[in-house]
Amino acid sequence: MTKEVAVIGIGMTKWGELWEKSLRAVAVEAALKCLDDAGVDKVDAITVGSMSSGLFNAQEHLASVVPDYLGQRLVPAIRVESACASGGLAVKTAYMEIASGLSEIVLAVGVEKMTDVDGGEATFALASAADQDNEAFHGITFPGLYAMMANAHMHQYGTTLEQLSQVSVKNHHNGSMNPHAQFPFKVTLEQVMNSTQVADPMRLLHCSPITDGAAAVLLAPVEVARKMNKPYAVITGIGHATDTIALCQRKSLCQLPAVEAASQRALKMAGKTIKDVDFAEVHDCFSIAEIMVMEALGVVEPGQGGPATMNGLTALDGDFPINPSGGLKSKGHPVGATGVAQIVEAVSQLRGEAGQRQIKNARTALTQNMGGSGASSITHILEAR
Amino acid sequence: MTKEVAVIGIGMTKWGELWEKSLRAVAVEAALKCLDDAGVDKVDAITVGSMSSGLFNAQEHLASVVPDYLGQRLVPAIRVESACASGGLAVKTAYMEIASGLSEIVLAVGVEKMTDVDGGEATFALASAADQDNEAFHGITFPGLYAMMANAHMHQYGTTLEQLSQVSVKNHHNGSMNPHAQFPFKVTLEQVMNSTQVADPMRLLHCSPITDGAAAVLLAPVEVARKMNKPYAVITGIGHATDTIALCQRKSLCQLPAVEAASQRALKMAGKTIKDVDFAEVHDCFSIAEIMVMEALGVVEPGQGGPATMNGLTALDGDFPINPSGGLKSKGHPVGATGVAQIVEAVSQLRGEAGQRQIKNARTALTQNMGGSGASSITHILEAR
Repeated sequence: MTKEVAVIGIGMTKWGELWEKSLRAVAVEAALKCLDDAGVDKVDAITVGSMSSGLFNAQEHLASVVPDYLGQRLVPAIRVESACASGGLAVKTAYMEIASGLSEIVLAVGVEKMTDVDGGEATFALASAADQDNEAFHGITFPGLYAMMANAHMHQYGTTLEQLSQVSVKNHHNGSMNPHAQFPFKVTLEQVMNSTQVADPMRLLHCSPITDGAAAVLLAPVEVARKMNKPYAVITGIGHATDTIALCQRKSLCQLPAVEAASQRALKMAGKTIKDVDFAEVHDCFSIAEIMVMEALGVVEPGQGGPATMNGLTALDGDFPINPSGGLKSKGHPVGATGVAQIVEAVSQLRGEAGQRQIKNARTALTQNMGGSGASSITHILEAR
Repeated sequence: MTKEVAVIGIGMTKWGELWEKSLRAVAVEAALKCLDDAGVDKVDAITVGSMSSGLFNAQEHLASVVPDYLGQRLVPAIRVESACASGGLAVKTAYMEIASGLSEIVLAVGVEKMTDVDGGEATFALASAADQDNEAFHGITFPGLYAMMANAHMHQYGTTLEQLSQVSVKNHHNGSMNPHAQFPFKVTLEQVMNSTQVADPMRLLHCSPITDGAAAVLLAPVEVARKMNKPYAVITGIGHATDTIALCQRKSLCQLPAVEAASQRALKMAGKTIKDVDFAEVHDCFSIAEIMVMEALGVVEPGQGGPATMNGLTALDGDFPINPSGGLKSKGHPVGATGVAQIVEAVSQLRGEAGQRQIKNARTALTQNMGGSGASSITHILEAR
């Protein structure tokens, strides 16, 4: 039996092209907002999720930079990475610091500063999340990989461009109510379908953007959280899995076994099924990803993700809202920060503080954060208390 | 009270310039040797320590690559980084996977493939372990940073070039008996003192080399280890700390507060003092580092590291042997692998299997792995059972 761990504070920066702020400044801003939210000024340990601060900023060793500039000298700190799932792993690692008995109050920070390099360099850095020897070196990039998945899904299940586009419409609708979002505006189905083609069938508005930003959560044992007389949520399940690094090694381009395994493990640990979950934040790096993830989670049967999206199942007022925050599409995708920001949104909803985008009676949340073309995935189950 | 965790398997590759092997091949080779050593073929989770596979190999996401090529599909895996302390953190994270109750049999792999780039690119990648904004960008590299520390130590305590050189002589002596070492040969005091100057006062033979290599350890709860009827060691203490990323922000150039704090925490957790420790593997990235670390550990008083080295205290047959493996200087320093290899050597000694370099009656070991100019440090205490 593992120790119960609570999220006692959340914070994030405005996401976007933050040219006037450095990598460390962005990380520290989110961390300070989180500590302010919790009313805590000293932590026992820090975890930092960042995918590629080496390639983006020539700065490894964020495990020293973040505590140093946060005024938390001598604390144990660790940077974790699993491509775009780095943020989710920062939260898992913070959980392990506490559940293992090594630390009590642990801060998890996710950060990425992606606009300090030009577009080609950013594409190169992001491609290092794929198989360098068998994919990236030969020229394929992530829009191309996900386009192959989209084409396969359309071929196998009849998923349509309109259905893919509705994912973006829904997420931009939600994100238009999120003050932290990079692109807080609505888009129409026609705008998405007619946007510039990136990799057939995907248009620009099916793709998440390049973003600077950070997010942070503060964790503590539940017995500590109780004494603080503030709202908190509890992490009741964590599931984590990996798959082949190269997309071509999978049995099917239409399935995400790591997402399925991770989510089943998380639900099992929480003693729940997907039917017990009220809403989810998932990894919509491309519109097809949200459709494939909802199928892998068991929200709908394989092939039904597109029709269900058109029918409003995953809308804010639907039976299973997905990405109330606006998702990666509208909120932005500073890769190492995304997984932490999913937890920030989940806790915000569970605390009933999500403002215009508040989901009614939100008691149980699922977050799903993914690396590469589904080569790693981590799911957290969070519950209101 | 945390769960007791044992090291039930160890493995490492020959270290050197492994141009004929890829990053993933090196990691998998060490992992397979470790699994063979333990007689285990399926693990519950994997941690990977690597400092900068992005800058060295354009390959992030080793958390997917390593389990994939090791034939351990769907296992949870995480890559951790804290510059040259990444390996030590991989072992700590594996410990947390077990002690938190999330996993049972966990493999920690440390790997770095540094010779796929040229010397200038390697220097650039390594400098990302320093403060990019305030150190590396302005042109200083690690030999320069440690040279300043050496000069300060010589000025404050009268440490001599001969004493610095004796560190290298001792470590090459030990490494000459290590079949995995990159430079398994002896050097004389005269050869070290007359080698090419790199950054005054440091000569080439005061510096650890650029290395390709990997190391792996397999961890399990002690109750599982007991049932396997094989020799094992127990991790009884873990201490971890960080300091300012920039050297110029420290109160003294002659002290390593993160090393001191991490080691005190580890000893406290193990219920021991430094006098209870039989030998240590420490982070001699440069000769001055070994001297400053032995002072920070409390093996000798501040300023006495140089004289103690000359007097043979830290020799293989001395009262407190340091770096029986040959240390980073002779064994090599594939940065992300070093911390794991320290544990491999410690366990090898505790099992009485270190051959010609076996320390008599080795029952309690300390390992100390450091990032940057002392900006992070992690210590493990291991005991024979």
